[in-house]
Amino acid sequence: MLAANEQLISAIVEEVSRRIKQQAGRSDYIPIELSARHAHLSEEDYYKLFPDAPKELRELSQPGQYLLDKRIRLIGPKGVIDNIAILGPFRKESQVEISVTDARSLGINAPVRHSGDLDSSPGGIISSSDGLVALDKGFIVAGRHIHMHPDDAAHFGVKDMDLVCVQTESSRPLIFRDVLVRVHESFRLSMHIDFDEGNASGCTPDTRCTIIKNPSEVKCGC
Amino acid sequence: MLAANEQLISAIVEEVSRRIKQQAGRSDYIPIELSARHAHLSEEDYYKLFPDAPKELRELSQPGQYLLDKRIRLIGPKGVIDNIAILGPFRKESQVEISVTDARSLGINAPVRHSGDLDSSPGGIISSSDGLVALDKGFIVAGRHIHMHPDDAAHFGVKDMDLVCVQTESSRPLIFRDVLVRVHESFRLSMHIDFDEGNASGCTPDTRCTIIKNPSEVKCGC
Repeated sequence: MLAANEQLISAIVEEVSRRIKQQAGRSDYIPIELSARHAHLSEEDYYKLFPDAPKELRELSQPGQYLLDKRIRLIGPKGVIDNIAILGPFRKESQVEISVTDARSLGINAPVRHSGDLDSSPGGIISSSDGLVALDKGFIVAGRHIHMHPDDAAHFGVKDMDLVCVQTESSRPLIFRDVLVRVHESFRLSMHIDFDEGNASGCTPDTRCTIIKNPSEVKCGC
Repeated sequence: MLAANEQLISAIVEEVSRRIKQQAGRSDYIPIELSARHAHLSEEDYYKLFPDAPKELRELSQPGQYLLDKRIRLIGPKGVIDNIAILGPFRKESQVEISVTDARSLGINAPVRHSGDLDSSPGGIISSSDGLVALDKGFIVAGRHIHMHPDDAAHFGVKDMDLVCVQTESSRPLIFRDVLVRVHESFRLSMHIDFDEGNASGCTPDTRCTIIKNPSEVKCGC
């Protein structure tokens, strides 16, 4: 009985400190992360490439997502890109996220899509030293998006699937339009852009980014 | 005397039709061009790389600028990029314009600069099959800018060296902030962005881009 109480108290303390920490850290800035090219694999495709089970190398910023200890190669009609990270857990369908720069060097005309939206996207070859898989679809350029917890969504006055504008205070300042908001209990506040977008804006993990709700907040200096 | 009059008439007709054409074509859209990596060379550096005089391959969009019939290689501590275009005419100082993506693959930390502003920019090696030149500076990422004729500047209500915002109606829409306006009699209206910026915005030569003078013109959909 005492043990059960201790567990309960410990769980309550943990949840309260999580909320205090979250509240203290809440500002109008959106943390930004640059997504390097990577793949999510189905269990079936994974085992065509690797004989042994994957190991989790490290946790990623979104809870429940982690980096695996294996790497793959991407092969397109025009080129090859090596050393591609694989993220876990397994997905129902394999998905390869590349930049437009990568797409051009592979010769695979990947469309800008949101994660999981793979219908009629182009395929390509993925390989390891043990195997080779021809995907008939799944190569996409990930659309920019913001992960947020429902508490963040309330703070910013937005909801799941909203499109917002995000202004960057970076070395090549710009305003990203049509940034998709994804809200889920398991999400940690973070905006994801790819390397082309990072290079074009000069955004780094330290860059201050703000959601623009009102055009009057736009800093055009013109 | 008749011949002189004919010449005069012909010159007047030419100038009038130029102005009519220019007026007819003038809209609020800014034509956009994606600048691929390229080099401008000093005459001295050119002749260290090539034994024979350059030939003009074709005119470029800005009057007086042209593509040469020779190509060079860029060499940095981390990598090499081949088949780099050289633009004429010769300049006082050699200047190599690359994207942030290129800079990273070369291992040359090129800063975002406007053309000609080379002070304390990093150098690198440029080579041909006949020679090799170590530049001690001149590798830059070109800052985005708009070339315009004084008539265009009057139309848009801007002046040389202004910084403006430009909104793109592209597949990955965004608003470029801090776009430098360059005004000169010899310039033809055109916004220049690099490939990272093109990839991040989805801009193509058909994309409609507009200068934003007033934040109320911003389309945020939010």
